[in-house]
Amino acid sequence: MSGLTIWTYDWVPEGPRGFVRDLRLRWACEEACLGYAVRTIPFDGRATNHLAQQPFGQVPFLNDGGVDIFESGAGLLHLARKSENLMPRDPVGEAHTLQWTIAALNSIEMVTVPWWFLNMRGDGDNALSPWLSQRLDHLERVLSQQEWLAAGRFTVADLLMADVLRVSTVRAFGNRPATEAYVARATDRPSFRKAHADQIAHFEAADH
Amino acid sequence: MSGLTIWTYDWVPEGPRGFVRDLRLRWACEEACLGYAVRTIPFDGRATNHLAQQPFGQVPFLNDGGVDIFESGAGLLHLARKSENLMPRDPVGEAHTLQWTIAALNSIEMVTVPWWFLNMRGDGDNALSPWLSQRLDHLERVLSQQEWLAAGRFTVADLLMADVLRVSTVRAFGNRPATEAYVARATDRPSFRKAHADQIAHFEAADH
Repeated sequence: MSGLTIWTYDWVPEGPRGFVRDLRLRWACEEACLGYAVRTIPFDGRATNHLAQQPFGQVPFLNDGGVDIFESGAGLLHLARKSENLMPRDPVGEAHTLQWTIAALNSIEMVTVPWWFLNMRGDGDNALSPWLSQRLDHLERVLSQQEWLAAGRFTVADLLMADVLRVSTVRAFGNRPATEAYVARATDRPSFRKAHADQIAHFEAADH
Repeated sequence: MSGLTIWTYDWVPEGPRGFVRDLRLRWACEEACLGYAVRTIPFDGRATNHLAQQPFGQVPFLNDGGVDIFESGAGLLHLARKSENLMPRDPVGEAHTLQWTIAALNSIEMVTVPWWFLNMRGDGDNALSPWLSQRLDHLERVLSQQEWLAAGRFTVADLLMADVLRVSTVRAFGNRPATEAYVARATDRPSFRKAHADQIAHFEAADH
């Protein structure tokens, strides 16, 4: 036992199933062959109930023995330090994995999530669309030249970027074949499939 | 000499001076007592000229001997590995510094920058305002209980969070005294003042 515990909700509606971010940590643990337990906090009252554990009232958070850590991106980098499966150990490979992990969070997701937020409100062609288009075009250019983002191999940066990109509304925003193939390549990995199936089963079990 | 080079633009208009993100890396180097050189790429034609060095056409990027790294957040975490001034070395302190660094990028800046973007277009009370308000309220709650975000001391997470928050439009978005005091505390540090003055001087020199 590695002593890792991933915390998520006890239940969510059908819409977000398969997309709750505990999936990122499950997937990382599967790739790294790290054992983990899953524990839950109540979905009801989430806005105020667990602020002591997560100051923004969100999931997931990770417990690793004496260490509690929130923010899925931070949990991923914490896990990446434990396994070369997630991040190479040479200085250049490690730096490039780090930069693309941060790029997924701060150059791509910083645009995709607010854009999606406006889109869900019915404003599909919103003020953030040109920005999103430009960022996704830059990424398409990179992905048309290489299979993975860093170090010539799958890393935690790909895990995160693919999770950011696989939201269907974002994928529907323009035809970008290299990006589409990249998302398919990443989500076809056995570790993603297991993590995804486990999350779906976790929330389905709570329906009964 | 540490062999560190921070890359930024040769010139920017007056508006962004003092806010270009090379300031984050300058500030971190000052806090860590790491020597560094500053080199420039042309501001004109930035959208396409340096895509080979930075796939989103942005600054800064950092060179550390044989390692090139873009994304200011990644540069900060790279520098934090070099100096305990930026990140404590005990596992809990390091994990909490990491989580708050990612929180600054992915829970706060992911809302402040798109909100600011819509605000700058004249839509001050925009669709992202409730989300921004909630995130800033959560942070205000944390900062009303502690001086710094992680490990009971200033870390790279505070450097980043304060830089994210000091944008005047975001600070004008509601009265949050603990957050205001926190930004003042961070930006009153000699290392911030030097980095800020150096950036202003750098761009002013290019006017002549």
